[in-house]
Amino acid sequence: MSMSRSKPSYQHGILTVVARAAGVSVATVSKVVHGRRDVGAETRSRIEALLYEHGYQRSDATPTKPHRFFAVFRDLASPYTLEVVRGIVEAGSRAGLDAVVGTTEHRSIPQWLDACTEPDILGMILVISRMTERDQQRVISKHVPVVLIDPLSEPLPGVPSVGVTDWRGAHDAVEHLLALGHRRIGIIAGRPHTPAGGARLHGYRAALHEAGLEYDSILVRATDFDFAESVGATTELLMLGDRPTAIFATSDAQALGVLEAARALKISVPEELSVVSFDDTSAAAMASPPLTAVRQPFDELGQVATRLLISMAEGTPPVVDRFELATALTMRASTARLDH
Amino acid sequence: MSMSRSKPSYQHGILTVVARAAGVSVATVSKVVHGRRDVGAETRSRIEALLYEHGYQRSDATPTKPHRFFAVFRDLASPYTLEVVRGIVEAGSRAGLDAVVGTTEHRSIPQWLDACTEPDILGMILVISRMTERDQQRVISKHVPVVLIDPLSEPLPGVPSVGVTDWRGAHDAVEHLLALGHRRIGIIAGRPHTPAGGARLHGYRAALHEAGLEYDSILVRATDFDFAESVGATTELLMLGDRPTAIFATSDAQALGVLEAARALKISVPEELSVVSFDDTSAAAMASPPLTAVRQPFDELGQVATRLLISMAEGTPPVVDRFELATALTMRASTARLDH
Repeated sequence: MSMSRSKPSYQHGILTVVARAAGVSVATVSKVVHGRRDVGAETRSRIEALLYEHGYQRSDATPTKPHRFFAVFRDLASPYTLEVVRGIVEAGSRAGLDAVVGTTEHRSIPQWLDACTEPDILGMILVISRMTERDQQRVISKHVPVVLIDPLSEPLPGVPSVGVTDWRGAHDAVEHLLALGHRRIGIIAGRPHTPAGGARLHGYRAALHEAGLEYDSILVRATDFDFAESVGATTELLMLGDRPTAIFATSDAQALGVLEAARALKISVPEELSVVSFDDTSAAAMASPPLTAVRQPFDELGQVATRLLISMAEGTPPVVDRFELATALTMRASTARLDH
Repeated sequence: MSMSRSKPSYQHGILTVVARAAGVSVATVSKVVHGRRDVGAETRSRIEALLYEHGYQRSDATPTKPHRFFAVFRDLASPYTLEVVRGIVEAGSRAGLDAVVGTTEHRSIPQWLDACTEPDILGMILVISRMTERDQQRVISKHVPVVLIDPLSEPLPGVPSVGVTDWRGAHDAVEHLLALGHRRIGIIAGRPHTPAGGARLHGYRAALHEAGLEYDSILVRATDFDFAESVGATTELLMLGDRPTAIFATSDAQALGVLEAARALKISVPEELSVVSFDDTSAAAMASPPLTAVRQPFDELGQVATRLLISMAEGTPPVVDRFELATALTMRASTARLDH
């Protein structure tokens, strides 16, 4: 059955009067009435006050208040993504907000952005994804509340992002290996053109440099944050005549690949090879041996991203565009002092 | 600002007329108008036809159609939960539905059930959780569409659940070990009072029985589906004078614990100990060595649960209460022929 809107015309009249009084179009007033947020905070509150003054009555039984947000991932394939899902769901729940979890596999980023205009949607947290410049421009000009977590490319000014201290975390990981006496330290790096991949590689370089060691590109392999690619790259490193005594892997998936490559070559960890990982998801704690790893504060990532989203939806832009949360090194069984 | 409902009284009049004609209360008609689903399918369609006949016009600009559902977990802690999140998000997305992911840590099951009456919510998929009999009675009497995945207790008739062929999968895992020549086979079982834990243990027993082997309770340890508990239990098994040559672990988290216990005791897998897991999440593929495992069809679990939810929301009860999806054994490097 089809049911169409019945709207008394005197209500329509109020919109016109309010639009004139506020110096905006009727369409803008209508947006405010329907709870859409692509109207500046100052304008919105002026219009709402005028609507109230003129006795406008909303036709909805319960005025729609945003109480959901989108948490959108490129995919849900890595151990990392579960921890971020958990951090976001937890933070949303504490703030009384529901998290709609989705991916960009079935719905494109522009489609997700369109869906953000639904009145009950606060905005979107977009995780490890790449946004085109055009989509970012749209986010900025339409004031759609969007927060990025670990974007795959440098975001435009005005699009806030949250991540961790990638450079510092990588630096600390390598410093730990140096303190154990290792000098020949390999790295299974991420893709250097991604912000996280680049910063972690630079952290490795900086720690070596501070220790007076030369950067040796033969010990550096770049792969995706991927298990199988890491098994291949690590096997190459471990087949070198002068093989590394320690490897820093820039994600848990890669570190698990290092363990598997070492096992296949009968090189025991940590006796003959020390391994440090980055992420510290549950996969690191359940590895064999359990991995020493740079911990990403997943709960805090979710909390900071959610809080940013809420304040942006309320009309308060973030103080800065980039938030980096501190990492910490978790010591487990995959690293040992180098015996000469 | 406060905005209250403006409802022309002739519309109210129609509700009264329709209620009389349908032989129901005005409250029931109102429920149908507001898209709530705690009205039987047959009654609802009769009321909708009468509303149409009497020219009732809905006051909403766009009639609310359920386009979201809840996917609620006890927690988001295990590798298993990520795969189920992915399967559900994927299936929902294909059906044009958004998945709101949550846990019972911040909102109780009765609170989630209350939220199911929101007009844009289709219903709820509840994963590895325990529902009280009272909540289940409520689900049945109020016709709230709820589907359970891997419930922790036997559900009441009328509450549909989806799981995998736990008994058959466990049976096949042990049969594989028997075919490799193993006779002394241990099990790191789940809690026997849970449906999945009990069925997997029975599958182990049945395979041994068919091979003419006696069930030896000293080789059987029950833990949660948990890494650390499994490390402890496996260590006990491997310290036995006549230790097992193979272990069947009833989840990936437990199998990773078996690998770690073996590593700590310098028992090499698969040369000295074969290990079969159950789940086959990405953690099994990224283990060292990669685990032979009984695969749960996660995508299909999500699809079947979502389809059931949709048809229940449309008023079609499921044909049967319990759906078990077939498992399959994935062969990897953690099992080998027993050498005498």
